[in-house]
Order: sequence, then structure tokens, then C-alpha cells
Amino acid sequence: MNSLQKLDKLRCLMALSDFDAYIIPGTDPHMSEYMPDFWQVRSWFSGFTGSAGTLVITTNFAGLWTDSRYFLQAEAELKGSGIELVKLRIPHTPEHVDWIVKNLPVGSRVGVDGKMISVDSVRSMRTAFTGKQIELVTNEDLVSPLWTDRPPIPLNPVIEHDVEFSGCAREEKIGMVRNEMTRLGVTHHLITSLDDIAWLLNLRGTDILYNPLFVSYVLIDTQSVKLFVNEAKIDPETEEDLLNDGVSICGYGEIEETLSKLEKGNKLLLAPGKVNFALFDAIPSGVKIMEGVNPTTLMKAIKNETEIGHLRQTMVSDGIALVKFFYWLDETIGKEKITEISAADKLELFRSQQPNFKGLSFATIAGYASHGAIVHYDPTPETDVELHPKGIFLVDSGGQYLSGTTDVTRTVTLGVPNEEQKRDFTLALKGTISLSDAVFPEGTKGYQLDALARIALWKNGINFGHGTGHGVGFFLNVHEGPQSISPNAAGPASNVIEKGMVTSVEPAMYREEKHGIRTENLVLTVPYLMNEFGAFLRFETLTLCPIDRKLIEVSLLEKQEIEWLNTYHANVFERLSPFLTDKEYDWLKEQTAKIDF
Amino acid sequence: MNSLQKLDKLRCLMALSDFDAYIIPGTDPHMSEYMPDFWQVRSWFSGFTGSAGTLVITTNFAGLWTDSRYFLQAEAELKGSGIELVKLRIPHTPEHVDWIVKNLPVGSRVGVDGKMISVDSVRSMRTAFTGKQIELVTNEDLVSPLWTDRPPIPLNPVIEHDVEFSGCAREEKIGMVRNEMTRLGVTHHLITSLDDIAWLLNLRGTDILYNPLFVSYVLIDTQSVKLFVNEAKIDPETEEDLLNDGVSICGYGEIEETLSKLEKGNKLLLAPGKVNFALFDAIPSGVKIMEGVNPTTLMKAIKNETEIGHLRQTMVSDGIALVKFFYWLDETIGKEKITEISAADKLELFRSQQPNFKGLSFATIAGYASHGAIVHYDPTPETDVELHPKGIFLVDSGGQYLSGTTDVTRTVTLGVPNEEQKRDFTLALKGTISLSDAVFPEGTKGYQLDALARIALWKNGINFGHGTGHGVGFFLNVHEGPQSISPNAAGPASNVIEKGMVTSVEPAMYREEKHGIRTENLVLTVPYLMNEFGAFLRFETLTLCPIDRKLIEVSLLEKQEIEWLNTYHANVFERLSPFLTDKEYDWLKEQTAKIDF
Repeated sequence: MNSLQKLDKLRCLMALSDFDAYIIPGTDPHMSEYMPDFWQVRSWFSGFTGSAGTLVITTNFAGLWTDSRYFLQAEAELKGSGIELVKLRIPHTPEHVDWIVKNLPVGSRVGVDGKMISVDSVRSMRTAFTGKQIELVTNEDLVSPLWTDRPPIPLNPVIEHDVEFSGCAREEKIGMVRNEMTRLGVTHHLITSLDDIAWLLNLRGTDILYNPLFVSYVLIDTQSVKLFVNEAKIDPETEEDLLNDGVSICGYGEIEETLSKLEKGNKLLLAPGKVNFALFDAIPSGVKIMEGVNPTTLMKAIKNETEIGHLRQTMVSDGIALVKFFYWLDETIGKEKITEISAADKLELFRSQQPNFKGLSFATIAGYASHGAIVHYDPTPETDVELHPKGIFLVDSGGQYLSGTTDVTRTVTLGVPNEEQKRDFTLALKGTISLSDAVFPEGTKGYQLDALARIALWKNGINFGHGTGHGVGFFLNVHEGPQSISPNAAGPASNVIEKGMVTSVEPAMYREEKHGIRTENLVLTVPYLMNEFGAFLRFETLTLCPIDRKLIEVSLLEKQEIEWLNTYHANVFERLSPFLTDKEYDWLKEQTAKIDF
Repeated sequence: MNSLQKLDKLRCLMALSDFDAYIIPGTDPHMSEYMPDFWQVRSWFSGFTGSAGTLVITTNFAGLWTDSRYFLQAEAELKGSGIELVKLRIPHTPEHVDWIVKNLPVGSRVGVDGKMISVDSVRSMRTAFTGKQIELVTNEDLVSPLWTDRPPIPLNPVIEHDVEFSGCAREEKIGMVRNEMTRLGVTHHLITSLDDIAWLLNLRGTDILYNPLFVSYVLIDTQSVKLFVNEAKIDPETEEDLLNDGVSICGYGEIEETLSKLEKGNKLLLAPGKVNFALFDAIPSGVKIMEGVNPTTLMKAIKNETEIGHLRQTMVSDGIALVKFFYWLDETIGKEKITEISAADKLELFRSQQPNFKGLSFATIAGYASHGAIVHYDPTPETDVELHPKGIFLVDSGGQYLSGTTDVTRTVTLGVPNEEQKRDFTLALKGTISLSDAVFPEGTKGYQLDALARIALWKNGINFGHGTGHGVGFFLNVHEGPQSISPNAAGPASNVIEKGMVTSVEPAMYREEKHGIRTENLVLTVPYLMNEFGAFLRFETLTLCPIDRKLIEVSLLEKQEIEWLNTYHANVFERLSPFLTDKEYDWLKEQTAKIDF
């Protein structure tokens, strides 16, 4: 069944249900950014495989709303599907809702599967719909009946994440959450987000590619912790450990019934942005609901000393793999055939030789020349191209280690760069340096810092269409809230950048049809100083990998920017050089040599 | 009657009305920042005269919530009043509401005069109160019965603001608003904010000190414009002009009844943040209300070519007055007695000699030495001190001209500055330069730019507790929305900085007990360039006044900062020097001399 046929059939079902529009969100019942194949409903239906995007189908229109990272990819993937790309003006905003309000007649009926959309989204949609008396129906799933060859929900085993790495025992974490529940005066807390659950229970899984998560729910009260998960995923030893820590196993499908049986008078804490509407709907009206952020969300974002220690060490491992890769690339280019995919595979090989490696943290973005300008380009056999000893190569990659998650982008020249390439590279690099070198008062929010990464580009009439930084988990999701750094203050960037958080810094520039440029490091928020003006924080750059000096136009840098670069490169050399072959050592020495002002 | 007696009497009235708390907001029925004496209820009651602050009185507590600009002033003014200062953590946020929720028992009753609070504020308060079932009663005014010697509502005459200055006739403006009403599908529009009314009708008044406004309401529909104003304020000629343009006069007090008689089915546009709750309450339920921003708010913020032309010329007039003043100060200090007040008076005198001058745009802040650290210090005979040929003097002042409104701060040294003074001055100046020199994409919001003004201070462990910039009216309010530049994205800084807007740039640093430093200019948003990355804007600095070179520590400046300063000073000299005496000319030449790198 091709996309056009799917569209026809869906429109028939819409007619039967009397829907004027049907919405297919790009998430799952856990509001995941990445999800098991079973819930890749929007991808299956439309062919668009990006991590963000919403479909709206009406009787005479079908549109996919996505952000600028995916414009080129979506145009390619949607060709012939009968679905049009609608470009989001502001990333991660529900502009399709405005479209519905504008284009549908008064009194229309709109359907969406309540399991696949958050409480917050349903509410804001209903508010937006009020003016035109549009009804939002949340209890009809029209796509599942069409998807006959749907893959199953994964049954992959769950593993324990040793306290040696997490630095905080499961019992202790549960105690911390219970303390917070007491402070808030609630009796129960529902956790539906998979990274929160994995962090809380020191458990990991492999249900989702690149995200070490397992499909489950948690309901915690003052006495018990119920983990709703397919029991086949838990080995007896882990089950016993869990029981010893007061965690009992229930079937994954039992969550709705359990919620529906909560007794009147109980107070339930939940995060309306993370809980799906169908689950929320199952809670009896006598239960008092307190809405807020999951306590685990902030707890896991603020890394403890054990995690920070491991992360610093993991950056050495990851840095060694990166240096070995870029040295190999430098030596081999023009001698052996290398393609985007083979290069990405080589980098994965080097990473896999490092201790505690468990896999990649996302699909390696290896974009040569104009492919670099496709923001989330992930080479496929159809798009793969050979690298030549000229032009720019962008590699955005990361590893999942038991001892932490990495995410790093380097852009290198494979030949002699031209002026434009050097200028573009250096202007984006100024953004990376400016943000990495920032100092800011405690309480500063991500959106406040965003312009520091853009101003050098702006002054040259350049901008980039994605955020500047995202939080990163610890052997967890490579995109992890609550914080982010972006121009959009209505999103996660409205959260405070706190001490102990790990965030990416990744300003970029994309010259369509030519090249993409990005220098991305992970930074840790650390204390700076305290005085009569309050407490100030700064960033410690964690990532260890040389920045291509051949692409730097030194005349565009200020003295303090060169100082930052020299200090950074000296640190990279000091930390990584003991672990390299002689040739790699010499190469790194040259790559990290001091730049004179 | 002193403040303690007022507090006792109010508590009696609260007991009679069965109130557990009573709120006295710091505004008027037009949600003005500054207001006629008649509505200075909070000031009369508490003695605190700052422009922002809310009183909450309970049976055993009375607190005034205000922001860091007013901490020192409020502490002084509240002494002995029985009212405690409560310091706002985030400026302009209703933290007193959280306090009420936290401190009052379940089921409490809270009173507020509905005329003195906006629809938005009542709603958000009621939402916050739901959890504890606190009732908000809006129809009891407990303070007016106590205020026996209350001044009257002013009857000052209204004057026409000539189209030669405004650049857009009243009829045309009304047409623009009606077009917007048609686009939005509304039949009526209620305007309650005095600056919107003054702009729309090209009228001005003197009802409020420093703000050229007159007390009134406007109701506009497709056929008529009704101006609700005391008829004694309008001379027959103006009345005829208004009638010719389709504007009829109704009594100021008739607005409530007129609204209450609106027919069912009409659609009324209003701004819930600007309309007082009592007025809103008078609208019959059959009238459909559309909530949004007043169309006039954005229209008046975007200055037209005529206004911009006048403003550039007015900056020359204002600059001449400033140069004459600072030259006089330089020549006279140590020879004649000068105090903060006499200096401010001298500056007013110089301004009053300029064409089109109509008065000051706010009370001159003339803060010598440690007084400069009191952010909104306005010298009174009790606080006035003599200036000596040493130390730092901060002067924040502005004029109301028929041809525009100015607002400028300069900080000068009256002797030989020490290292700390120079360093503090230069770090704050780096913020002024960085923001003034910014380039940014169309669509950028105020909060995105704020950190550019702070980063140099932050890196040195310094911050300032107020916003970085505010919109400025044209012969209107010196604080005018919708835009602002501040860290608070929930406020006006969430609005886009658009082409044609005039905004202040005023980073600062306050060293308590020592000095206050601020260099403030007004900037106009102008186009920069347009390319494949979109359209970019920049700021044109309008204010013309030298920046004290004696306070600049050149070694702390980057090359491009010095270039900005030299270019700025060259422009100041070129524009102002033709209008000075020989001595002033020589002085200005020295003040604006090129700084070498």
C-alpha cells in the first residue's frame, strides 16, 4: 500500500467518523522524540522519517508540518505521497493548529488518537478551537486498522545500570522523589516518560534505536513503586533486585486500569506535557490532580559527582576514537575509496573499541559538501557519495557509553579550503567560542544565552534555523530536557541552566547546495564566582576533539577567541595524546598547535 | 492621618466586608504606569512613590512588593508606615499572588477595587486562587472612603498635536484601525490606554506629570468614534475638528453605561491587559469579546518617516542642551555651589530653550556618588547633596518635545576617577556598545538581545537588576510598549523589535554606597541587509551626547568597540558643533576626540 492509497483509505474512515480533519502526531504514548517502530505511525503513513513533524489530513488537503532542519529531507521523502510539506516558521510550535482554525469551517470535527498526544496539546488545541466551535475527538484511532503489517512492541531485555556509573542507588532516587512528593502534598506520581523511568530505576533497555530505554510506565506512592512493563523483558535476578528495592512489576497494559481504580481523595502528580491524553482521561474525577514537572526530570539533568567524573573520562575515550578517525581520514582520503557511509562506519568502529561503549547515541550525520547543508542528513545507500580530497565534510556523531552519552560535531576540510569556506567556518566557530566562554548569573535561562552564539553570524547576515544547544542525558537520551538554548522562550529554553547540567553548544551555518558547518561541544555548567552581585556560573567544555585549524581565518578572530582556542587545543592534546600511536600523536600535535595572534 | 492610622482604618473596613486580605494595585483605571494624583491610591496609602509596586494588607501583615530599582527608595519611604518592603525576585511579576496563596487559609476572601486592576490580572489571580478556594471580590473600593482630601480628576485642556509632527492625520489613523477591525471581524473596539487614545486622535494633554496624556476612553465602531472625556477639557475649535473627523464627545463617566448598552451580537475588540475589570464586567454577556492587542499599540510604536525625521532633529536640540549642561558643569564645579537639584534644574533650563520643548519626559535622576546607586533616585530637598570636584555623577533625563520624546543617561566624573570607577564604567559601556552595534534577523524579540548588553559585566561578576531597554513614544510616554529588551520573556520583551521602533539601550552597574553608572541612548531599528538567510535589522543610535572619555579604561575595549565610540563621537561633534558657543565648541571637540587603539 503506497502513501496515496493510505490517504484514500484514511479519508474513507474519516468520512465514516464524520471527521473534517484527522491529525497524526509524530510521537508515541510516552511523548518520545524517537520511538519503537510500532509507534512510527506518522512515518509509516507519510514516508517522512524525521524526528519532528505532524500530519494534518482534511478531505482535500494533506500537510506535514516540520521545522527547517528537515525541509530538504521532507521534500524528498514526501514526493508523490500526496502530502505537502508545510514549513514551520518557528520550530516546535503547533502552527498546524492555527492552520486548522483558519481553514476549517465553523463547527468542524477533528480527530486524533488520544494515546498519541499529550494532555497539554489537547488542551491548547481545544482552546484554539473554541472560537470556531471546532470539536476535537480524541478516542478514535483511524490508522491502526490500516496498518496490517505493523511491527510488534519490542520485547528486548532490560538491563541494570550499575550504581558505579549512576552514582546514586535506585532506593535513594525513589526516596528523593518521595521527598518531593511529600513537599508537594501528593499521594501518587505517574511517570510516563521513558528516560525518567530509566533514570529513576537505574535500568536501561534497547527498545528504541540509539536511546537506551524500555517501554514502561511507573506509578509511585508513599508505600509502593509499580513498574508497568512486559514481564518477559525482566530477568528473574533484576526482578528480585527491584522487589528488594520496593519496586513491583505489573503488565504494561495494566496502567490504564490501575489509574482508573485510584481511590477518590488521592492526589496524583503528573506532567501534562508528558502524559498522553487517553491515560489522563482514565483517571477518575474524584482523584485530585496536581500538574507539574516530573521531579526526576530536574534530578537527572543535574549530574552528580560520580556521573561527572565518568563523563570527563568518557570524553577521553570518545576523543581518542574521534582523533583516530580524523587521522585515518586525513591519511586515507584520495588513496582509498571513502564514502559518507563508510566514513561513519569507520568512526563507529573506533568508538566500539572504547571501554563501556554500548552503541551510537544517534544516526551519524556524515554530510559531504552540499549534503552538509541538509541539517539532519543521515546518509542512505541511495544518497551516499564518495569523499574526495577537496571540499568540506561535516560529521555529527555520538556514543552511548555505560559511563555517559556523547554528542560532537566537527567540520573538516578534505582539501585546501577557499575564502568563503574559511569565513563561514570561522563565523560559526566564533559562536561556539562566545557561548562556551560565557559567564552568567544563577537563574539564567537558555533563551537568554542564545544570541551569544549567533551575533557574529548575524553581523554577517547569516543565521541558522535550529536551536543552539540541548540537554544531554547520562547513558540516556542525547536530547534530554528540561533545559535548552534556543531563541524560543516558549519551549525548554525557558528553563534555567543549572549547575551540573550538560548541554550542547552547536551554532552552525548552512550554505544551500554548498556546505554545512557546525562545531559542537558538550559543556558542563560549573560555578564561577560569588560576590555582592550574586552567584555566577560558567561552562566547562567536556568534549575533546581538535577543531580544524585549516578552516580558521585567524584575522576574523579576536584575541580572546584565539586564547580560548589555544587553551582548548592544549587541553585536548594533554588529555588525549597519551593514548595514541606515534603517528596519531604527531598528527594531533600539529592539529592542536598554538595559533599566534 | 498617618500611614499607621490608615492601616488601622482599612483593617476595620476589611473586617466589615469580611476580607482576609485587601490588594491595592499601583495603577489606575487606564492601567497607566504614571497617573494623576487622583489615582495615586497606593502612594497616598503607603507613602511609597515609586512607579511600580503592589500593596497587600492582611489582618496581621502589610507588604509592598516592588522591584530592585526601588528597594532603597521603598525602604526609606516605608519607614514607620507599618508596611514592609517585599523584594520582587523577578521584576514586574505578580509574586504577591503566590504569597497570598501560600499564606492565606483555604476559603479566604480577598478584595480589590475592580477599577484599578486589569482583566488579565483578575483572571490570573483567580486561577492561582482556585487551589485554595480563595475568593476574589472586585466590587468594593475600601480606600476611597478613607481618602477625604483626595485631589480631583484633572480638568486640564486637551491640545491638538499637529500633523506636521505626527505625520499622519487623525482620519487616516482611524481608517487604519477600522481596517484592522475589519480584518479581525469585529464591530467595536474599546481603547482605555491613554497613550493609544492620544496617538489615535493626535491629541495631547497635561493630566499626568511628564506624560502628555488626558484622561479619557474611546469606543470606535464602523460608523462612529466616541471620545469619553470631560467636555470642559476640549475647546470649541478642537471639538469641531474632532466632529469633522467623525469623533463625537461623550462624558468621561458615560463609558460604563455605553458599554452596558452594547447590543447582543456585536463583536468587541479589547486588550485584556489594558482594560480594567470593572469596565469589562459592564459588557453584556451577549456581546462577543475578541481579545487582542490594541491595533494602535503596534501602529504608534512603529514611527513613520515624518516622526523619524523630527526625532533626528529633536536629538540635535536635546544634544545641544546636554552639551551646554555638561560644559557648564565642567566649568562651574568647584567654583559655585551646585547640588543634585540645582544641576537638574540647570539642565531643564537648557532644554527649555530648545524649540518645541513642552516639559520633561520624567523626573530627572541626578544621582551624585552613592545616590547614583539608587536606581530611580529623584532628588528631593531632604536628600539633595552638593556636588564636589570628585566622584561620579549620573544624570538620567529626557524632554517632551512636540517633535519627539527623549531619554538619555550620561555618567560623568567630576574629578580624577579611580581604577574601580573606570573599570565599572567601561564594563557597562561595553554593554551599551555591544547592543547598539548588534545586527539581528527580522522577527527577533527583545529578550533575545538582552544578554548582549550584559555579557561583559557578567564575565566580571556584575549584573544589574532592571531591563536593558524600553520602547519610547513620540511626544508620548517615555516608557511605551509593546517592545522592550529584558531577560524576562514573559513580559514585553517577548515582542518583536520591529523596523521603525525606538528603544532605549541602557545597561548599567550599581555599586551600593559608592556609585551608579549607566550610559543610555535611544536607538531606531533600521534595515541592514537582505539575502538568502532572510532580512536583517540593526540599530541607528539617535541620541547625541558625548560619553565621558575620562571614565573609559581603553585597555578593556576591543578594537571594534573603540571604532564604534570614535564613529559615535565624530557624529555627535558633526551634528552638534554648529550650534555651540566657541567655548562649548572647543569643549565638545575635546570630549569627542578620537581614541587611539
